[in-house]
Amino acid sequence: MAGKVSPHIEERRRDISPEVFKIHAHKSVDWIAEYLENMNQYPVLSRSRPGDLKARIPSSPPATSEPLEKITTDFREIILPGITHWNHPRFFGYFSITSTYPGIIGEMLCSTLNVNAMLWKTSPSATELEEVVTDWVRQMLGLPENFQGVINDTASVSSLCAIAAAREYAGLNIRENGLAGVNLPKLRIYTSEEAHSSIEKAAIVLGIGQRGVNKIPTDKGFRMDIEVLTQRVEEDIASGVKPICIIPTIGTTSTTSIDPVKEISEICTRYGIWLHVDAAYGGSAATVAEMRPLFTGWENADSIVVNPHKWLFTPLDCSILYCRRPEVLRQAFSLTPEYLRTGEADSVTNLMDYGVSLGRRFRALKLWMIIRALGTERIANTIQEHISYAKRLAKIIESTPSFELLAPVPFSTVVFRFSPKVVIDNNEEINALNEKLMETVNQTGQIFLSHTKLRGKFGIRLTVGNIKTTWDDVALAWDIIREKAKELFDTRY
Amino acid sequence: MAGKVSPHIEERRRDISPEVFKIHAHKSVDWIAEYLENMNQYPVLSRSRPGDLKARIPSSPPATSEPLEKITTDFREIILPGITHWNHPRFFGYFSITSTYPGIIGEMLCSTLNVNAMLWKTSPSATELEEVVTDWVRQMLGLPENFQGVINDTASVSSLCAIAAAREYAGLNIRENGLAGVNLPKLRIYTSEEAHSSIEKAAIVLGIGQRGVNKIPTDKGFRMDIEVLTQRVEEDIASGVKPICIIPTIGTTSTTSIDPVKEISEICTRYGIWLHVDAAYGGSAATVAEMRPLFTGWENADSIVVNPHKWLFTPLDCSILYCRRPEVLRQAFSLTPEYLRTGEADSVTNLMDYGVSLGRRFRALKLWMIIRALGTERIANTIQEHISYAKRLAKIIESTPSFELLAPVPFSTVVFRFSPKVVIDNNEEINALNEKLMETVNQTGQIFLSHTKLRGKFGIRLTVGNIKTTWDDVALAWDIIREKAKELFDTRY
Repeated sequence: MAGKVSPHIEERRRDISPEVFKIHAHKSVDWIAEYLENMNQYPVLSRSRPGDLKARIPSSPPATSEPLEKITTDFREIILPGITHWNHPRFFGYFSITSTYPGIIGEMLCSTLNVNAMLWKTSPSATELEEVVTDWVRQMLGLPENFQGVINDTASVSSLCAIAAAREYAGLNIRENGLAGVNLPKLRIYTSEEAHSSIEKAAIVLGIGQRGVNKIPTDKGFRMDIEVLTQRVEEDIASGVKPICIIPTIGTTSTTSIDPVKEISEICTRYGIWLHVDAAYGGSAATVAEMRPLFTGWENADSIVVNPHKWLFTPLDCSILYCRRPEVLRQAFSLTPEYLRTGEADSVTNLMDYGVSLGRRFRALKLWMIIRALGTERIANTIQEHISYAKRLAKIIESTPSFELLAPVPFSTVVFRFSPKVVIDNNEEINALNEKLMETVNQTGQIFLSHTKLRGKFGIRLTVGNIKTTWDDVALAWDIIREKAKELFDTRY
Repeated sequence: MAGKVSPHIEERRRDISPEVFKIHAHKSVDWIAEYLENMNQYPVLSRSRPGDLKARIPSSPPATSEPLEKITTDFREIILPGITHWNHPRFFGYFSITSTYPGIIGEMLCSTLNVNAMLWKTSPSATELEEVVTDWVRQMLGLPENFQGVINDTASVSSLCAIAAAREYAGLNIRENGLAGVNLPKLRIYTSEEAHSSIEKAAIVLGIGQRGVNKIPTDKGFRMDIEVLTQRVEEDIASGVKPICIIPTIGTTSTTSIDPVKEISEICTRYGIWLHVDAAYGGSAATVAEMRPLFTGWENADSIVVNPHKWLFTPLDCSILYCRRPEVLRQAFSLTPEYLRTGEADSVTNLMDYGVSLGRRFRALKLWMIIRALGTERIANTIQEHISYAKRLAKIIESTPSFELLAPVPFSTVVFRFSPKVVIDNNEEINALNEKLMETVNQTGQIFLSHTKLRGKFGIRLTVGNIKTTWDDVALAWDIIREKAKELFDTRY
């Protein structure tokens, strides 16, 4: 591996030449447009089998430089078949996302500048643009002015930071003393049974533990039961447990249900508990005026997470944590060793003070380019259309015999199952049938769906979120689902 | 913000057209090469003042689409002046980094595919390439085969994950019960006074607390004092405190000193304590065979962090956490809700199980392209040259009257100060003089240096890490430093 130093090494170039870069970057630009405009030729879900890629990549790195031509060819021939095409307009699984063209240009420039936005000084534009652009998004969402945004990689980290702030807000001197061996009460956070797994993961990381997560049951619409919540909080307080955070979700992962945030905010106010709203997916819908009533109460939150990389057409990764008490977030995280001290620290924001990671990519750049290139109206219109497709599909499903809608559809996600009369009473059989249906549908390569389980029922999830998805894509998905359901049924019964 | 739905909205394009994308992406490619080949025209440290950018960006987002031409022009005219050029070959501050051409192409493709590498299924290539490429780097570093790599955004997160695994390894059922109110002993981690601030931040986040970090004093060479460490560990055990992790650094941030990892590993073995090695910066030097002796003992670590985005010519962000007990890391983080359950989970790696973030960019792609495009020999040679420049500069400084080397130079970072005889006995004055010197030098725009403080002494740090940096750049830096020092001295004395 090591090398002898050539006496002339300073005279030769170490990176590839700008000419070679330009040839292959230009080719890549053409390929990118070709790829994104012709995704129909790819199966949405990769057909790769475990080990396929590993078998085709040398197990050791090359000692000497390989030509870019070979590397980019391998990208297309070896890497691409193992890609599940998240950017495909008929990727309907998990939460559907989009990498838009201006976002790709933003990432090209971001990786070129390669700035670390840890301190204002280390790139004033990166810090100030992050402040301005997160405020743009705040306005798009109709949130009050007292929410300040900071960009993290993912909602997992944004929620972790929010709950860390909540822990600090509890005033138990946890930052200094920690949690173990200091005679503290048990800590508790409250969220619904439908909350995202990242909340429980944050509790583990933060030393609250899985048992410190009180998962409140949900009502028929998969919304947190407010009476049970109140009761649990009061019981905990009475027994000496310290409630530190309540985390309702606007747009849960399984069904996009909406917890009663306003009522929850009143409980938080009454007991002095931090309110963190997980709107990682749903939040973007607040760009649509007609959707705003679904968000009532979130303006009372202490913190809110909204992911532009989910439904604001921004490439991974970009998660905004809004905080109404940024000074608490800062108190939870700020640490300035001498080598990061700067003269202007008191007059500017140093973003490293508001989260876990010291190193921070210039993520605001792509978001700024996307919002300007698309405009807020087109963004809101697209989201509104996505919602309209989902509601239209939900109506069709409701009126289709032997299919069943499993949850209300407030946003762009439809959860349903195939429920032919002959098997409807055998839950295990119907679950297996739907799992098989989902797999069969995904194997066509035409569409990709994912699943969830709702009170024991296997539900197929279809979510609309890609900027290119049209009603025709959803209609095609529905045709394929019905056709495969019929085939499966005919084979089995 | 909201929008009326146009009846024809499905017929019009929502993202910008591929033609417009291609025009501006091609222009951007040309600009990128132009920028990277002509960085001399930019001051390394931005001359922007607080608020400059904010004053030039509208405070609200545009309702309708703006032309890409205008956005990219604004990028060059408004954003660029506020950039501190981390990619400049004379950026000698903090740890100098590089975004190489193949890495930029990698990021273009990564943002286009926009895959989330959370599950094997959600892009088999992304998971398998991450396994293969982190193993390539493992081989380049000469680490044993039983280290498995996983890519995080930054070393802050990698170390957080490592210490979370250490906490789990302590066998106190912390994942389930948390730390508070469960009658646990105090937890302690041990690191040196010179450790990176991310270790203390991880302790805060993990509920260990700042007081749970035992900062061991260092010797004259800024290396952890092994006798004090042993004594502190033994005292803690005797008094019922639970030691969970010792974190030596190979290449500390201030001086790149190297803790005695081998001796520390023996203490870890003796007392069953997790050994996490912070080699975020220094690790890359293990690609150079002659440097390997400096790493003796790290093969005994339970976990090691090495950042390709620091000194392996990879754009931000890319931090590899190597773990010899990946099952413990998995035990600390794995959570699989129904909506993320997949059929092949037992036969493949699902990378979401090994860290905090569920969403994961396809970061292995750029690393794969860089290693192939450069080859391991050229990478190792470049690092070796960087080290040789630093050692050469150190010798010059040692032989220059009125300058003083403040620390040994094992890697590519030189810490020194201007110490003219007339002020050498007044530490405050000499510190102020050096701070002024650094600022004056940085204001030239020709080079960028940062600083640290070593036992009360203000030290100027010059670190070599950019792939394009040659000895001429270092020599120019030295010329500027001496010239400005002389000017300052002549003005003042």
